[in-house]
Amino acid sequence: MMTQRPSPASAARRSEASRRAILTAAFELVQEVGYAKLSIEGIAARAGVGKQTIYRWWPSKGAVLLEAFLMLSEGEDGQPAALPDTGDLRADLTTVLRATVEELNDPRFDVPMRALATEVAHDPKLAADYAERLDRPLRMIKLERLRSAQRAGQLAEDLDLDVAVDMVWGPVLNRWLQRSGPLTIEYVDSVVTTALNGLRHRP
Amino acid sequence: MMTQRPSPASAARRSEASRRAILTAAFELVQEVGYAKLSIEGIAARAGVGKQTIYRWWPSKGAVLLEAFLMLSEGEDGQPAALPDTGDLRADLTTVLRATVEELNDPRFDVPMRALATEVAHDPKLAADYAERLDRPLRMIKLERLRSAQRAGQLAEDLDLDVAVDMVWGPVLNRWLQRSGPLTIEYVDSVVTTALNGLRHRP
Repeated sequence: MMTQRPSPASAARRSEASRRAILTAAFELVQEVGYAKLSIEGIAARAGVGKQTIYRWWPSKGAVLLEAFLMLSEGEDGQPAALPDTGDLRADLTTVLRATVEELNDPRFDVPMRALATEVAHDPKLAADYAERLDRPLRMIKLERLRSAQRAGQLAEDLDLDVAVDMVWGPVLNRWLQRSGPLTIEYVDSVVTTALNGLRHRP
Repeated sequence: MMTQRPSPASAARRSEASRRAILTAAFELVQEVGYAKLSIEGIAARAGVGKQTIYRWWPSKGAVLLEAFLMLSEGEDGQPAALPDTGDLRADLTTVLRATVEELNDPRFDVPMRALATEVAHDPKLAADYAERLDRPLRMIKLERLRSAQRAGQLAEDLDLDVAVDMVWGPVLNRWLQRSGPLTIEYVDSVVTTALNGLRHRP
């Protein structure tokens, strides 16, 4: 009796389908059971794959979650979308940061993102992957929007753009992760205004 | 035979000594074994107390760590010290933030603080305790320093002081916890400058 061997193309399709099923399962399951009770076994069962399949591709549940976020953040071309550029920097930053806060306040995102963020805090290897594959592409599009404003003469010429990105996003992310206050629209708007204007008295 | 009963005063002294031994043990042990392997049993053994003593006072290892940080942050009067006020806000903020970064870069503090920060991220009850007992007194002294600068006419009159605190400390804390870049003196200095001056071009 001859063994039926799948063609390479159909094997690749099945493999991609398994990958997506695993990442979706991990993202959904962590919302339901929390990160502490998330297990490779649980993800495998929900995705309908063997747990060896998961271990072959990822070293830890944190790595699976990172990949799930990468899948979500990618547009059709595999790159994150650009930030809006209407020419009004304050309006554009407010729009983007309000959308970020809406996600952070949504339990469907809050739980998996909090899990990933705290894994990153404890695991330098995962942190390096996170920085390289998820944070850096997002930072690039933030920097690009600031550079555009700088070219238009709206931002200080000697501005440290990397610090400027941290100045807009850092307070919100820190308040979210440390639960140091509510993430309201008013807070976001005040962060954008304060970052743009600075603390100093302007004569 | 008469039972020797300790006087209330000596019982209180012994109780305070046990409390300090437990908090010191927790702080030291988490540096050695990491937070995942920190256990109430381990803390009890190192402190030379029964684990029931710990469970009677604290609901979780995160709560023990929070109390250990409170013990460290308190001056002799039980209050955190004020921030320096030389009249030069930029210099004072730079001094304070450089000292913060030095602590965050020191493994003796990094490990327990990271453990506490990620527990706070996952445990709303602990986060409320943390905000009330550790973060709020520190925030008060930060706000006091900014108010002093505002009275001196150095800061904008309509400045949102709470956001201003987040603008100075948030980027550093976020970079530390998310490991998104090195915490250097240059970074600190650029954060202080950028927070004070703002992103906008000044005509």
